[in-house]
Amino acid sequence: MTDSASRRTFIAATGMAAAHVWVPGTARGYSAAEMRAMEETIGVSKWELDTPALCVDLDALESNITTMQARLAAKGLGARPHAKTHKSADIARKQLAAGALGICTSKVSEAEALLAAGIDRICMTTTNPSPSKIRRAMALRAKSAHFIQAVDEEKNARDLSDAAKAAGLTADVVIDVAVGTRSGIPAGAGAIALAELVSRLPNLRLRGMLSYDGGAQHLTGFATRRTTALANLEANVRVYETLKAKGLSTEIFSGGGTGTYNIQHEVPGFTDVQVGSYLFMDMQYLAIGNAAGGPVYDDFARSLTVLATVLNNRFPGRLTTDAGAKALTLNVPRAGVVGEPGMDYNAGSDEFGVITFSEARKAYAIGDKLELVAPHCDPVVNLYDQIYGIRKDRVEVVWPVTARGKSQ
Amino acid sequence: MTDSASRRTFIAATGMAAAHVWVPGTARGYSAAEMRAMEETIGVSKWELDTPALCVDLDALESNITTMQARLAAKGLGARPHAKTHKSADIARKQLAAGALGICTSKVSEAEALLAAGIDRICMTTTNPSPSKIRRAMALRAKSAHFIQAVDEEKNARDLSDAAKAAGLTADVVIDVAVGTRSGIPAGAGAIALAELVSRLPNLRLRGMLSYDGGAQHLTGFATRRTTALANLEANVRVYETLKAKGLSTEIFSGGGTGTYNIQHEVPGFTDVQVGSYLFMDMQYLAIGNAAGGPVYDDFARSLTVLATVLNNRFPGRLTTDAGAKALTLNVPRAGVVGEPGMDYNAGSDEFGVITFSEARKAYAIGDKLELVAPHCDPVVNLYDQIYGIRKDRVEVVWPVTARGKSQ
Repeated sequence: MTDSASRRTFIAATGMAAAHVWVPGTARGYSAAEMRAMEETIGVSKWELDTPALCVDLDALESNITTMQARLAAKGLGARPHAKTHKSADIARKQLAAGALGICTSKVSEAEALLAAGIDRICMTTTNPSPSKIRRAMALRAKSAHFIQAVDEEKNARDLSDAAKAAGLTADVVIDVAVGTRSGIPAGAGAIALAELVSRLPNLRLRGMLSYDGGAQHLTGFATRRTTALANLEANVRVYETLKAKGLSTEIFSGGGTGTYNIQHEVPGFTDVQVGSYLFMDMQYLAIGNAAGGPVYDDFARSLTVLATVLNNRFPGRLTTDAGAKALTLNVPRAGVVGEPGMDYNAGSDEFGVITFSEARKAYAIGDKLELVAPHCDPVVNLYDQIYGIRKDRVEVVWPVTARGKSQ
Repeated sequence: MTDSASRRTFIAATGMAAAHVWVPGTARGYSAAEMRAMEETIGVSKWELDTPALCVDLDALESNITTMQARLAAKGLGARPHAKTHKSADIARKQLAAGALGICTSKVSEAEALLAAGIDRICMTTTNPSPSKIRRAMALRAKSAHFIQAVDEEKNARDLSDAAKAAGLTADVVIDVAVGTRSGIPAGAGAIALAELVSRLPNLRLRGMLSYDGGAQHLTGFATRRTTALANLEANVRVYETLKAKGLSTEIFSGGGTGTYNIQHEVPGFTDVQVGSYLFMDMQYLAIGNAAGGPVYDDFARSLTVLATVLNNRFPGRLTTDAGAKALTLNVPRAGVVGEPGMDYNAGSDEFGVITFSEARKAYAIGDKLELVAPHCDPVVNLYDQIYGIRKDRVEVVWPVTARGKSQ
């Protein structure tokens, strides 16, 4: 698929209608002036927002949540959406209301922010090796009976059990079993021994295992993705089956994501999928192709955009905008310009976007606004303090990005 | 220069000594719990910080501020440091105290945040074409007699004058004259006509011109950088000389940066340099070479690091850390690992850093910490809510990143 072909799919006809007005949910950390500024945007056209502005189309977002939940359920799987994508308590609440089993977080600070904003049933998918983070994780467990955390080595399991004992509780843990070489304990005898150790340790409760295959999610072409994802999990399935045969907990066998959500049910024993980007879609996921062999991954609607303003139009075949690397990151493929398949968007400058084109739908004046599709949604959302929720082109709600920057 | 050669220069011998304890300055937007957590870190070893943590060595930072101010002054130039790099009211205050003429900001929201935190004498270097941002800029001018803003087209000049009139004030503006094709009005008759228009408009006061050459800053090799930077500014100098001959204000002729700070004095009429990265240094600037022909740009000390923790050491020749793209961005060259010139650091995963190496100084255990040099400092600082100020390896102060995420 060429970039132009994928960009053409983004052209959207948008109407204008009265919006149902909501008030923002939690908004810790905003000054009174900032809160007023956000409230003043409720009901206005998105095209009037100061830019760069991170927007989500609520019809598309809600449809994506419903669709994912239904499709996973039809295959006997649960959803355990990963909050690393949206970092938003408001969106997590929608996912849980739609039937998600729980919410994943990548970091302890992310879990802290979401729990403080009322999101329970959190599974932290990254390990906490340092004493300080172990204490923070135990504090979360003390506040929430539903908090689950990952472990991937014997020393860490013993440290967790000791810390749980010191905190006067029993901590729920899942074994993180590696897929590839990035994180987790290799799928083999060591993983089984670790599960047995966890089962024996006095202050830990084994809940099952994680097996996230980050590498398979963005493979292009459904057939390749399916073959690779299933092959990558073969050793993990053997771990799962051994744990089951030994009578150890396999209540949770979780992993996968937006790219493999329709493949994971083929994995024996798999319970739930850690989907994230399906909410928003982005240039990376749009390019991986769908199960019917089409070049565009169109299972979910593209809901997330960044609004930008043209700052310079004076040089032929070029436009400069106010959305650079601090608004879009340097991920590839580059940002798409909605309705302008012939435009190439370079966010290589920190503060400026540079568009080059040979033909454009219209002549752009300084001050005109453009709508951009993010290269990769997760790190882009992490740049913004709020998301504007848009319905029929008007601001319906402003959501704080609850766990923005919570990378600890 | 190879990556290994540049990394070797980062090996730093660090001592341990009692720290002079400061309390944090402004800290708007933090909850009481977050404030307590920051205060609790004062005096602790940086190696005890939860990671990823953004740290600046205060001795190196202060030395860089003093050195830059003295070197520019020796050539008859002023410093007008750009806050897009540090986003910090505390660091801006140090730059002003050292003698800087003022502080630049890239966006109106950045200027708002810094002014609210007590930083005056702000020059906003990007234009504000939309009515809403023009109102915001005029509100800044109403609060600060020293606020200066850029203009680069006639319509915008008229809009600014009208908005200034509506606000009951006279706004100080500089003409942004393009270097290259990214931002600004081309250096020619149009730029002179714009300056004349600004001088005539009733509610604007012309203060001079900007000519920032972003493209020249990172050119490798001093001789190339000098030749290119000077050639790129020739047409801008003709604009400057015409304005001067016409009796229009040339009080400000500003531009340049860390890469050309020792070149700008050769530009006739140039008044001040918009230096930013010299505070911190990063992999990009370290690689451009110095005026003596050396491969490492060592005019300033490397002060900024990101601390990370090893999460996985199980796969030969590989380590996984907790600092990925959300902690370091995807800029190139990749992050450097202090003291480990043989390590290649890939921050391609959002949440994880992946190190590959054939040899390392020591065997790393899970939980060990590493110190990383940012690929490009500006967008990395923009990911963090606070900077830990370190002296002799201990936390002396925690600074909020005042304008973090203020990309509007």
